[in-house]
Amino acid sequence: MWMDTKTEAEEARRKHASLSQRVLNSLLSCTGDMVHLDKYMDDKWFVLQLAVWGLRGVARVILANNPLCGALILAALYWASPWQGLLGTLGVLTSTLTAVIMGQDSAEVSAGLHGFNGMLVSLLMGVFSSAGDWYWWLLLPVCLGSATCVFLFSGLAPVLDRWDLPVAVFPFNIIIVLYLLCTGHDNPYFPHHNAIPPGALEPNGTELIAVEVLRGIPLGVGQIFACGALGPSILILGAVVLYSPLLAVHAVLGSAVGTLAGLSVAVRHDSLYTGLSGFNGALGCMAVGGLFFTFSWRTHLYAIASAFLSAYSDIALRNLLGTVGLPACSWAATLTATLMLLLNGSLAAYRIPIGQVRAPEDNLRSRSQWEAGNTADRESTDV
Amino acid sequence: MWMDTKTEAEEARRKHASLSQRVLNSLLSCTGDMVHLDKYMDDKWFVLQLAVWGLRGVARVILANNPLCGALILAALYWASPWQGLLGTLGVLTSTLTAVIMGQDSAEVSAGLHGFNGMLVSLLMGVFSSAGDWYWWLLLPVCLGSATCVFLFSGLAPVLDRWDLPVAVFPFNIIIVLYLLCTGHDNPYFPHHNAIPPGALEPNGTELIAVEVLRGIPLGVGQIFACGALGPSILILGAVVLYSPLLAVHAVLGSAVGTLAGLSVAVRHDSLYTGLSGFNGALGCMAVGGLFFTFSWRTHLYAIASAFLSAYSDIALRNLLGTVGLPACSWAATLTATLMLLLNGSLAAYRIPIGQVRAPEDNLRSRSQWEAGNTADRESTDV
Amino acid sequence: MWMDTKTEAEEARRKHASLSQRVLNSLLSCTGDMVHLDKYMDDKWFVLQLAVWGLRGVARVILANNPLCGALILAALYWASPWQGLLGTLGVLTSTLTAVIMGQDSAEVSAGLHGFNGMLVSLLMGVFSSAGDWYWWLLLPVCLGSATCVFLFSGLAPVLDRWDLPVAVFPFNIIIVLYLLCTGHDNPYFPHHNAIPPGALEPNGTELIAVEVLRGIPLGVGQIFACGALGPSILILGAVVLYSPLLAVHAVLGSAVGTLAGLSVAVRHDSLYTGLSGFNGALGCMAVGGLFFTFSWRTHLYAIASAFLSAYSDIALRNLLGTVGLPACSWAATLTATLMLLLNGSLAAYRIPIGQVRAPEDNLRSRSQWEAGNTADRESTDV
Repeated sequence: MWMDTKTEAEEARRKHASLSQRVLNSLLSCTGDMVHLDKYMDDKWFVLQLAVWGLRGVARVILANNPLCGALILAALYWASPWQGLLGTLGVLTSTLTAVIMGQDSAEVSAGLHGFNGMLVSLLMGVFSSAGDWYWWLLLPVCLGSATCVFLFSGLAPVLDRWDLPVAVFPFNIIIVLYLLCTGHDNPYFPHHNAIPPGALEPNGTELIAVEVLRGIPLGVGQIFACGALGPSILILGAVVLYSPLLAVHAVLGSAVGTLAGLSVAVRHDSLYTGLSGFNGALGCMAVGGLFFTFSWRTHLYAIASAFLSAYSDIALRNLLGTVGLPACSWAATLTATLMLLLNGSLAAYRIPIGQVRAPEDNLRSRSQWEAGNTADRESTDV
Repeated sequence: MWMDTKTEAEEARRKHASLSQRVLNSLLSCTGDMVHLDKYMDDKWFVLQLAVWGLRGVARVILANNPLCGALILAALYWASPWQGLLGTLGVLTSTLTAVIMGQDSAEVSAGLHGFNGMLVSLLMGVFSSAGDWYWWLLLPVCLGSATCVFLFSGLAPVLDRWDLPVAVFPFNIIIVLYLLCTGHDNPYFPHHNAIPPGALEPNGTELIAVEVLRGIPLGVGQIFACGALGPSILILGAVVLYSPLLAVHAVLGSAVGTLAGLSVAVRHDSLYTGLSGFNGALGCMAVGGLFFTFSWRTHLYAIASAFLSAYSDIALRNLLGTVGLPACSWAATLTATLMLLLNGSLAAYRIPIGQVRAPEDNLRSRSQWEAGNTADRESTDV
Repeated sequence: MWMDTKTEAEEARRKHASLSQRVLNSLLSCTGDMVHLDKYMDDKWFVLQLAVWGLRGVARVILANNPLCGALILAALYWASPWQGLLGTLGVLTSTLTAVIMGQDSAEVSAGLHGFNGMLVSLLMGVFSSAGDWYWWLLLPVCLGSATCVFLFSGLAPVLDRWDLPVAVFPFNIIIVLYLLCTGHDNPYFPHHNAIPPGALEPNGTELIAVEVLRGIPLGVGQIFACGALGPSILILGAVVLYSPLLAVHAVLGSAVGTLAGLSVAVRHDSLYTGLSGFNGALGCMAVGGLFFTFSWRTHLYAIASAFLSAYSDIALRNLLGTVGLPACSWAATLTATLMLLLNGSLAAYRIPIGQVRAPEDNLRSRSQWEAGNTADRESTDV
């Protein structure tokens, strides 16, 4: 009896263990780049494939590459504003479809590389439009702008490829600036708000509220998707944690650095409260800390430097472009990340070739495997 | 007798036929790139050679490469304004001569590649000058500006050559912007008009006149030479027809697309009436539709996309540069055409290497010959 | 006796001759690049090495590469304003140290290539600051800005290297513009003066004073270090003479050309008097006349053309950037020199590869040696 009870308990424990193992495994399989999904999707319907490509595109905006993470972000956007969610969905689908029609490389399309620029263009068109939500005419420039992103992506790729640089969000930044310049502030069909430079004088000398500044840090992560609500911003951050906790840490760190940079040159309080000061820092920090470079304490320091550089450049560019009412979008972070990728010296040793970039944790693992292999190799040669 | 009459009639007919054949042949030999002229000119006087190089340069402005076409265009410019015609002639000759003195590649010089930027700089300097016609001091900056174009052409060539891109009118666009910035609006020696951005408010809410808008379409072709009169514009279009009817169709189509783009964002009526909204569209459409790409229905669609992109970018750039009183010249079309040449995907298959670009009709012929050759080759290999 | 006196006199003469020979030799060894110093410094203390690297960096600003020349210039700066001298010293040391920490190429560091951008950023931050001298908080952006120059230098190098171009002062120009944009005119922590465009109207119609204009020519050489006093400017010019008399001649010539260009478009008198119109011309002239190209009458003509182009571009850029209160720094000269290095045709034959650039006199000598070697080679081959 005693034996029996023991074995039964063991069996139950084993069952439980295998269940929790299975749950953990299936959970783990949802993190990182989810490469296994690609093989599974190969023979599925086109609509389903397109959905996965689109969700990857949504996640790509925040440097992740995971459809589940994309779905969470999309949910956050619909939560913040259904109209913005709709625009984003339309943008990512239009540009992915345009890429398919234009015969772009299918590996690029299925990795979501042709979706994220279109999504950002659509979201920003919606945010800057002063015609209010559900202004259906806006879908016209949204579709056109998203489609044009594919042209710019495809055209910039061979130029940047010479130095093994990613196209990143250059197309989005160019298209949104051109769109806002094209229509102007008081356009009869597509009116939009003017961006206010962060160096502009405050209307009245108000005191800085510390809590609001701290609230701006998670909002800085949400502002990458032009989302200014706290709940959805935290959900977006959660989506990044799902993809890679290391990336999420750098996102928050970068946003904090950006806020600090903003404080140091006394930007408008609004800019701090809404998280607009933080999001370029977050992007600059994420790109260097673990994504394009293997994580180590050295790349971590460079990531902080990159965050500061992004944040200060962003303030400078917003002051410059603000003189003609334009936003600086993510020009600063994109240029800074590109600069960091070009650096030689001690940082270059950690550089991961663009084609082999995975989630930070995977990068770290493949590096240590590669180094172990190298050592083993050397040992076997020695013998 | 009956036989005799018949043979006589036949003879007359044959004579007539051979005459019309000869006329047709000599007419046909005036179309396209007139490559045969180069051999004929080899041992002629330098002045005569320079004239042909200059005329090729004049035609190059509108993407043609035919001295006769250049002569027609020059006539149109003298018709529109003798002063502008003189400035254009001086510009094209100065920059071609500078290229000879600076030891530039003789094949480039004789193809007129060093003339068109100088010509455009001179014409635009004349148009923007507010000192009136026959202000002889203007010849000084005209000569200096035209000569500087050769420096920029020669310096930009190795950079753009890495991606097999043409230098196009980048030198002109840079020089004219620098000149206008250098002298400023109220310069005591070289005063000039400020450009008005197309998004500026109308003085009073006037109705749009449809006929004037339609008139703006052929004017858009003339505006490539900064010519705003209808007669000369049509003569310029005629010169393009002489070089290549396909190119002329795309010019008109592009100008129409540009006007449509202008209407869609409600630009100032003036901008539509004068053809200023159309000329960037025309250039963008011509570059893609047949010139740098073999003509097909697919390149035709891309040409229309290129026209739209050029036209919208032009409005955006004019709104931006207009805030400091500068014109956007042909920046938009030049950048768009460069982007199109960089595209990969389905358009890249039609790309013609820059060194082999001829008139669209010749491009089409050499492609089909090449393909026929390829097929024959494959067949012979199969056997 | 007679013999004795003669030999004694001869001995004395010989002694005197050998002394003067030695003095001359040691004087000559202080001109040019002082390459022999590098070997001598190899096993010295780091602080001493750093000092030499820093002094080379100071001289690099004016295209010289000689620590003694750097010491003279630093003395001139301390003479003009001790605060500016301190900022310059701090800037050059910070950026050189940052380069060491970041693991940049040691040959580059010891050649002073990582010092001059940091120095210029510091000097300009000091000049534009409106908080007055000895405002210690300024050391914060000075250190940060100088350190960032190393990032930009290291990042731009691989891009420009594709065309064998030097990074030159691009990092300085970018950083100072970003800094001024970031802080803005009325920043509470780091306020600064706005730059006045040279095309702005004079406050009242004053007469041009010829002596003041002539005085602006040597001041133009000093303005390369943002120094507006006559004495120090002449000392700086003297330092350039020590490095290479040919370079000094081109500096004065270029400054004169810049002043002439300023006169031709009627810039503000202030701009002429302070030498601000001259310094871009001086830099453009020096780069082409002997430094990056072997000296000859042809490169001399190109140097004058380069000076004119630099000067006119500078006026244009200052008018453009002045609309938002920004200075044009040395953008014009840097861009023009880059353009000149890209030129093909007759100038390209005189081009010296970037890695082999020495003082103009050495360039000339090594070229003639190389040519003599080539001739000897050919002769020996012929035989």
